[in-house]
Amino acid sequence: MKNVKLLIEYDGTNYSGWQKQNNGLGIQTVIEIAIEKLTKSKCDLIGAGRTDKGVHAYGMVANFKTDSTIPPEKFSYALNSILPGDIVIKNSEQVRDDFHSRYSAIGKTYKYVIYNSKFPTAINKNRVCHIREKLDLVKMIEAKRYFLGEHDFEAFTSTGSSVKSYVRTITGLEIEKNRENIHIYISGTGFLYNMVRIISGTFVEVGNGRILPDKIPEIIAGKDRSKAGKTLPPHGLYLVEVFYRV
Amino acid sequence: MKNVKLLIEYDGTNYSGWQKQNNGLGIQTVIEIAIEKLTKSKCDLIGAGRTDKGVHAYGMVANFKTDSTIPPEKFSYALNSILPGDIVIKNSEQVRDDFHSRYSAIGKTYKYVIYNSKFPTAINKNRVCHIREKLDLVKMIEAKRYFLGEHDFEAFTSTGSSVKSYVRTITGLEIEKNRENIHIYISGTGFLYNMVRIISGTFVEVGNGRILPDKIPEIIAGKDRSKAGKTLPPHGLYLVEVFYRV
Repeated sequence: MKNVKLLIEYDGTNYSGWQKQNNGLGIQTVIEIAIEKLTKSKCDLIGAGRTDKGVHAYGMVANFKTDSTIPPEKFSYALNSILPGDIVIKNSEQVRDDFHSRYSAIGKTYKYVIYNSKFPTAINKNRVCHIREKLDLVKMIEAKRYFLGEHDFEAFTSTGSSVKSYVRTITGLEIEKNRENIHIYISGTGFLYNMVRIISGTFVEVGNGRILPDKIPEIIAGKDRSKAGKTLPPHGLYLVEVFYRV
Repeated sequence: MKNVKLLIEYDGTNYSGWQKQNNGLGIQTVIEIAIEKLTKSKCDLIGAGRTDKGVHAYGMVANFKTDSTIPPEKFSYALNSILPGDIVIKNSEQVRDDFHSRYSAIGKTYKYVIYNSKFPTAINKNRVCHIREKLDLVKMIEAKRYFLGEHDFEAFTSTGSSVKSYVRTITGLEIEKNRENIHIYISGTGFLYNMVRIISGTFVEVGNGRILPDKIPEIIAGKDRSKAGKTLPPHGLYLVEVFYRV
């Protein structure tokens, strides 16, 4: 059995998310069906993580085991000829047997894109989150440092999500502006449910002046979801990269 | 009667172009219907130019005359509340009675976006043109200067297009690369049918080495469509801005 690793870009607009949901078609299922068509045998595709309905990915990683004679590096070409245009395999390669897309991952980078303009965008409507009120980039950049490092992020996850620990480490945070678009890049060793969307929503409150940058430590320490910003919508969120030990 | 000027952004993917075509819905018609709904009277919306099916616009300009009591600067808000999300009015204002979106225009800027990568993009599939073979940006930039200025561009328009003169002036040409995306900005006082898409296709041939940059003057002088590059597809093309005398 070969263990094949895929690097996947997708536009999440038309799917129920990475996983299937109720009657919605998951990206995972679409790729599994394509692999099964090529290999003529059942496929169990393991993703590096779930993404919600509407969330996009430039660099989702997934792996599957196969007896197929198709060379691992050819799966990208073969799959792209079958897959719909909003799912593209950017690379395929054989990896060690014990490689597991989720368990072997040591970190991830997400991007959240805010379109900060009086009116929404027509061209990128499913790919950015429109915020009408003018955001102060300087304040947002000031707030960055309070999120960096290891913290208990209970205030920054959806209430009711049950995990053993809310402690996570943010290893990188970049905020850039390109015309009307504000890009928030967040890297970490692991993320709580909706954590990137809530941190991004908190940056919006910092940018519009409702939360002062130096109040962030207090919000983190309070562990109270209601003190952080809103959960921004999924369509502004991108899984950019998943990191593995080399 | 007030003369109202609109600045319009649209994603051309789901329309027959600016104008209606056979059974396809034109962007112009969609906006006219929305204006008529607001003003309760027939609207004749004049666009700065046509864009083909699939072509996008950040800055299409159009104007219409109306007796409506709606303040001209409020039309943007009112129309955006009715229009589908892939058409957004970015600004509305009253202009002089003799302002005519097409006849008053003194120039336009278009952008063509090439996604230069081994595999296509999932996220921007309807917004860029995928070119697989590696393009040499240095050569493409070298070729720029030969297009600038006044030339007979008969080699760079679709055969069969009948116009009095093929002479046009290109006033600006910029080529930038941002990750996999190559942006070609072309500004001019006027453009022939498919001229931007054929010039962009010619830049592709320069980038892949099939046309040497210093052969461009010969191709221009030859006035032979078959010697220029291919007509690139519409979905990589954007009308960026229309210029008017102030």
